[in-house]
Amino acid sequence: MIARPMAEPTLAQRLLDGDRRALARAITLVEDNRPEGWELVREVYPHTGRAEVVGFTGPPGAGKSTLIGALTKARREAGRTVGVLSVDPSSPFTHGALLGDRIRLSEHFLDPGVFIRSMANRGALGGLSEAALQAALLLDAAGREDVFVETVGVGQAEIDIIDHADTIVLVLMPGSGDSIQALKAGVMEIPDVIVINKADHPLTDTMVREIRGVLSLANLERTPEEARALWRVPIVKTEASLGRGIAELVQRLTEHRAHIVAAGELERRRARNLRGEVLAIATARLRHRLEEDLHADPEFQRLLTEVVRRRLDPASAATALLEREGPLSAR
Amino acid sequence: MIARPMAEPTLAQRLLDGDRRALARAITLVEDNRPEGWELVREVYPHTGRAEVVGFTGPPGAGKSTLIGALTKARREAGRTVGVLSVDPSSPFTHGALLGDRIRLSEHFLDPGVFIRSMANRGALGGLSEAALQAALLLDAAGREDVFVETVGVGQAEIDIIDHADTIVLVLMPGSGDSIQALKAGVMEIPDVIVINKADHPLTDTMVREIRGVLSLANLERTPEEARALWRVPIVKTEASLGRGIAELVQRLTEHRAHIVAAGELERRRARNLRGEVLAIATARLRHRLEEDLHADPEFQRLLTEVVRRRLDPASAATALLEREGPLSAR
Repeated sequence: MIARPMAEPTLAQRLLDGDRRALARAITLVEDNRPEGWELVREVYPHTGRAEVVGFTGPPGAGKSTLIGALTKARREAGRTVGVLSVDPSSPFTHGALLGDRIRLSEHFLDPGVFIRSMANRGALGGLSEAALQAALLLDAAGREDVFVETVGVGQAEIDIIDHADTIVLVLMPGSGDSIQALKAGVMEIPDVIVINKADHPLTDTMVREIRGVLSLANLERTPEEARALWRVPIVKTEASLGRGIAELVQRLTEHRAHIVAAGELERRRARNLRGEVLAIATARLRHRLEEDLHADPEFQRLLTEVVRRRLDPASAATALLEREGPLSAR
Repeated sequence: MIARPMAEPTLAQRLLDGDRRALARAITLVEDNRPEGWELVREVYPHTGRAEVVGFTGPPGAGKSTLIGALTKARREAGRTVGVLSVDPSSPFTHGALLGDRIRLSEHFLDPGVFIRSMANRGALGGLSEAALQAALLLDAAGREDVFVETVGVGQAEIDIIDHADTIVLVLMPGSGDSIQALKAGVMEIPDVIVINKADHPLTDTMVREIRGVLSLANLERTPEEARALWRVPIVKTEASLGRGIAELVQRLTEHRAHIVAAGELERRRARNLRGEVLAIATARLRHRLEEDLHADPEFQRLLTEVVRRRLDPASAATALLEREGPLSAR
C-alpha cells in the first residue's frame, strides 16, 4: 500500500500548535498588511485571551529590553513560554532605537520557548500600533503564556499597543526627571508597577521618595472607598543587567494579576481595551481612506491653495472636504 | 439735533481692531465649540498670517511659563504686542498643571499690550488642540505681533498645536535626561532652538555637551548640501526667573526667523502646517461622528460583546462597523 500524503495543516492550525515558523510568517503578514494576515487573526481570535500580557513603557535608555531579557529568563526557569514584542516608533534617521536593543535579548534567540519580534514598519495601513496589536493576538493564539510588549512611552500613536496590556509597567532610571514631572503634572498616567532600573546609581533613593510623593498625591484625590479597593503601585528597584530585583518584580507582577483577577478588574480592563481597539482601528481606516481620496482629488489641492492664500480657513476647508466624501462625513 | 446711535460694530470688526474683550469672547466661542466661533474664524482668517508664532514645548517643570513671561517683557520693551496661549493637556486630577503657572505671567495681566489665555477644556469637538489652533488664528487676526504658544511636549493629540508654530523652541532643564534620550533615539523631533532653563545648576554644561552630541549625530545623516542649507540649532542657557539669557534667546529667535524667511522655508512650513491642519480637523470630525453614531447604535454594542467574548476579532468588528456607516467607510 502506497502512503498517501496527508493534507498540509493550514497556517492557522500550525500557529495554534505553537509552530514558531508559522508564528513568524503570520506576524509578517499582518505587518505587511496582507489580507491573509487579517483573515488569520480572525480565524485564531477565539483562541486568544489566555496569555498574560504585560506592557513595558518608559523613556528610551531606561533599560526596558535588558529588563525584559532578565524577566524572560526568570519566566523560562519557571517553565513558562514567552513572547516578546518590541514596538519601535523612532525616526528613520536613527535606524531604530529599540532594534539595537534586540542584542540584549540575544541569549534567548535559540530557546524555542522564547519568541522575540521587533516591529518598526510604519508603512502599514492603520500604522505600526495596529499591526502590533494583531501580532500580540497572534502570540497569544500561539500559546505563549507570557507576552511582554515593549514600547517607548511617547503615546504619539492613535492606537497605543500598551493599552492592550493587562498590566502596565513604567520603567525609569535615575535621571528620569522628566518622566517624574510628567507623572506629577498628570500628563502621564499612573502605571500598575514602577521599576527603577540601573538602581546602583546614588540618586536612586531620592528618586523613590519623589515617586512616592507623586503617588500619595494621586491617592489624595480618591475617596476612602476608592483608596481601599485600590492597587497600591509598588516601586521595584532593579539592576536588570545583573538580574538584581527581578525576583521581586516577578512577585509584584504576580500580585498585580491576582489583584485584578480577584476584583473582576481584568475582565473590565480587557473589555474597555477591546472597545478602544475597535474604535481606534475604525478611525485609523477612515483617516487612511480620507488621505487616499484626497491625494487623488484636484479639488483638495484647490482648497489647500485657498487655505495657504488665506482665503479659506482650515476648518471650512475640512468641512468642504467632508461634504465631498459621503454620508458619514457629510452631516 | 438728537445724536443717533451708531451701528454696533460686529464681534469680527472689534476683534480686527484689537479689542481685548472681543478677543476673549471669540476664544471662548471656539473653546465651547459654538458655531459663531467657527464662523468668526472663517470671517477673520484673511487677516491672519502676520503674527510671528513661536511654540514652546518641553517637559513639565522646565519653566516654560516663566521663560515666556520673561520673553514677553523683552518683546513689550521693544514695543511689540504679545499674545500667549497655554495649552494644558494634564489630567483632571491635577486641576491643570499649567494653569497654576499663569501666576508667573501675572505681572503682564494689566498690560493691554499682552493677552494671556490658558486652554484646558477637553470637551470640545475635535479636542483641545483644534480649539487652540483656532485661538491662535484669532490672536493673529487681532493684530498680536508675537504669538507664544506653550504646551507640554507629550504629543498625545491628533492635532498638535505646536505644529502651527513658525519656530519651535524646546525648553529643557538640568535633569531632563529623558528628553535628551528621546532626542537621541529619534522619538522626539529636533526643534529649531533649544533652551536649557534653570542654567545655574552645576550639571548644565554636561547637558549642553550631551545635546551637542545628539545634534551632530543628527547632522551626520544629512547630505553635505542639506547640511550647508541647514539651520544650526542653537542651545541657549537661561535663568528665566532672573531674566538671564533672554536677550540671547530673542536674538536667536530673530535669526531663525530671518533664516526661514530668506530660504523660503517660512512659506513652505506654513503651507505644510496648514495642509496638516485641514487633514487633522477632518479626521477629528470623522472620529467624533463615528463615536456619536456608535454610542446610539445597538448593533455596535452587540459587536463589542462578540469581541469581548472572543467570537469576533477587533479588526473584523471595525470592518463591520464601517460597512454600516456609508460610502467613505464602506470601500
